[in-house]
Amino acid sequence: MKAFHDLTELPTPSLILDRSRLLRNVARMQARAQALKVQLRPHLKTAKSARVAELAHNGTKGPVTVSTLAEAAYFARHGFRDITYAVPIGPQKLDQVAALMRAGGDPASVDLKIITDHPAVAQAIADKGRELGVAFRVLIKIDCGLGRAGIPPDSDLLLPLAGILAGDPAQPGSRLAGVLTHAGHSYNATGIAEIERIAEEERLAAVTAATRLRAAGFACDIVSVGSTPTALFAKSLDGVTEMRPGNYVFFDLFQAALGTCRMEDVAVSVLAAVVAHHPGRNHFLIDAGGLALSKDTGANKHAPGTGYGRVCRPGDALPLPGLSVYDVHQEHGLVGGPLTPDGKQAEPVDFAGHAPGSRLRVLPNHVCMTGAMYDRYFVIDPARNSGQPGGGPEIVAEWDRVNGW
Amino acid sequence: MKAFHDLTELPTPSLILDRSRLLRNVARMQARAQALKVQLRPHLKTAKSARVAELAHNGTKGPVTVSTLAEAAYFARHGFRDITYAVPIGPQKLDQVAALMRAGGDPASVDLKIITDHPAVAQAIADKGRELGVAFRVLIKIDCGLGRAGIPPDSDLLLPLAGILAGDPAQPGSRLAGVLTHAGHSYNATGIAEIERIAEEERLAAVTAATRLRAAGFACDIVSVGSTPTALFAKSLDGVTEMRPGNYVFFDLFQAALGTCRMEDVAVSVLAAVVAHHPGRNHFLIDAGGLALSKDTGANKHAPGTGYGRVCRPGDALPLPGLSVYDVHQEHGLVGGPLTPDGKQAEPVDFAGHAPGSRLRVLPNHVCMTGAMYDRYFVIDPARNSGQPGGGPEIVAEWDRVNGW
Repeated sequence: MKAFHDLTELPTPSLILDRSRLLRNVARMQARAQALKVQLRPHLKTAKSARVAELAHNGTKGPVTVSTLAEAAYFARHGFRDITYAVPIGPQKLDQVAALMRAGGDPASVDLKIITDHPAVAQAIADKGRELGVAFRVLIKIDCGLGRAGIPPDSDLLLPLAGILAGDPAQPGSRLAGVLTHAGHSYNATGIAEIERIAEEERLAAVTAATRLRAAGFACDIVSVGSTPTALFAKSLDGVTEMRPGNYVFFDLFQAALGTCRMEDVAVSVLAAVVAHHPGRNHFLIDAGGLALSKDTGANKHAPGTGYGRVCRPGDALPLPGLSVYDVHQEHGLVGGPLTPDGKQAEPVDFAGHAPGSRLRVLPNHVCMTGAMYDRYFVIDPARNSGQPGGGPEIVAEWDRVNGW
Repeated sequence: MKAFHDLTELPTPSLILDRSRLLRNVARMQARAQALKVQLRPHLKTAKSARVAELAHNGTKGPVTVSTLAEAAYFARHGFRDITYAVPIGPQKLDQVAALMRAGGDPASVDLKIITDHPAVAQAIADKGRELGVAFRVLIKIDCGLGRAGIPPDSDLLLPLAGILAGDPAQPGSRLAGVLTHAGHSYNATGIAEIERIAEEERLAAVTAATRLRAAGFACDIVSVGSTPTALFAKSLDGVTEMRPGNYVFFDLFQAALGTCRMEDVAVSVLAAVVAHHPGRNHFLIDAGGLALSKDTGANKHAPGTGYGRVCRPGDALPLPGLSVYDVHQEHGLVGGPLTPDGKQAEPVDFAGHAPGSRLRVLPNHVCMTGAMYDRYFVIDPARNSGQPGGGPEIVAEWDRVNGW
């Protein structure tokens, strides 16, 4: 593989990871987990990288959360043994789950936990486990207000679900591992005070369900919560055993708009190049469009004018005032000033400062979606300058990602 | 590689390509090109597949359009020799373009054409060509009303650009190959009559620019237009030499909403499985979310309630009345009835007909974006039933795709 020395040598678009920002972000969350006295089980749906997962655990192969079985297989292959697949399992995936648990020949070599909220799926899990001679470890998915997946903590389904999953002790096809919830609605919060309130709702939902299960005689070892906003601002996680934030390793413009990070914490960006100037339309074109940046526009809810990303000089990755990618086509990004309410750009664009062929970096609106288009990170360390004129930070590593399903 | 017999055996999500619909679509566009007496140069940014490109040309390796240099390299590797890279070239990509032109050792082995609309880029092309001893073939990008890239056909820049690109005949670093325009604003049309009008604007813009160039003594061999809507409904392409539609090979819900195809023409879908039921929230969950379907919501402009895709039985891929993927998270799709103006679902969902583990197919909102998440197509032929109970159509092939940059 060709090695690249600095940002001037990379193809465009490329995905850039700032190691110093990443290290600061993972240290911040490690400190949070210690202060809250819970296990950190980072959700690797954002990073999809074994190297990032290890850094999130101070160099160890600690507990991880995944969003696909492709991720589960990848992390198992990289030596991670304690994995939770935190999307409701479809019965058609159980053979593959069992195969992953047995990876390496040992039936318990990978502790791959799955989740459900449906009695028919729970029964299918228990039956399939007995058929295959494995005991699937299952968490019951609790809804704490997001309204996406899970049963409410006071649901009449909770104990019947537990009964099915706890199964027949003599021949268990499944075991109840605990409860899991996710306060994704914290992303709609309008300030830190509201995030704190949602974090408490999240804690309470998980603990309420766990308390009901234990009162009915079921074991409930794992009480799992977590989103990046609530993990950063929860005042207490009493009764919770672990948290699963994911986005925090990189952050993005959505998180900055929400107030959970600063612009200088956003660790991933897209390197792009200017390809055309259109002064009559007050925009220039870059070679990063809807595929390179994603079409996610969520951050605009909190920060109008964010568009599909904010534009930065390659050397510092701090947003240039008044410049955003305000529209995208498949491989075209249109860069101009934020739009006024009537759809016009407010400020004239600095064309002289962005000659065709010059490079810039785009901070992503939603990094989980943007990252998924790339098979690798080019890792930079801003403290190590390449020494080339205009080269900026040196590329210190290439890290792979696991995409697809 | 494991071979799959039918849709019940595939992992979910997977990308499904209906060969019979594809063949009908490519035949329709071949007939259009013949009737309009222009060369068809399909834009492979949609399919990113050599097999689809060959079918679009009746089994031959005819002229193609690409949106990335990764696609250019892929099609060159598969024997395609006449390639146009239809995104404005950044000067930093010229070394790579020259390397692709020389693939196989022959300086002219791949006729890879590039485009620009900027005098400084044109000069960089001419200079780089002389430096490397190649003559880049360049088309001038014309704007016909989309307002994304290109100069207007009456621009004062047209002849100076041609002058730079035509270069020094004694030592040419570049050659002027022609003009190219794209009526992407046809996607905003409100009916076929408006598409016809935009098609005529597109034709006129390209022909006007070509006429001005020729009147000034420049060669202008290629006069290139094309988008799927205008290619299907142009009444005349007099003066045009080629058209570059891309989406038509597959079509999608956007095109169906625009009126350029029927639902039963949409050739690509995402196979997904039901993973949870939430009757209290009137939705069920599928294992295809924002990554598997993309976050593109463009079709809703023409067909409110389309959401992120329409849901179909696996066997026929025709939308079930009242069911769409109305919200997505990274790996979750929420399926319910189309939303009413106050954000509620209008009709109760048929849970009994969609048991957990059961499969369905989702027609994509915008297939160019959806396809980009998959590395292969599972190709089905509905005329060949697998013979398995519930198996539906047989999988007759796996075709690769070229993603990334």
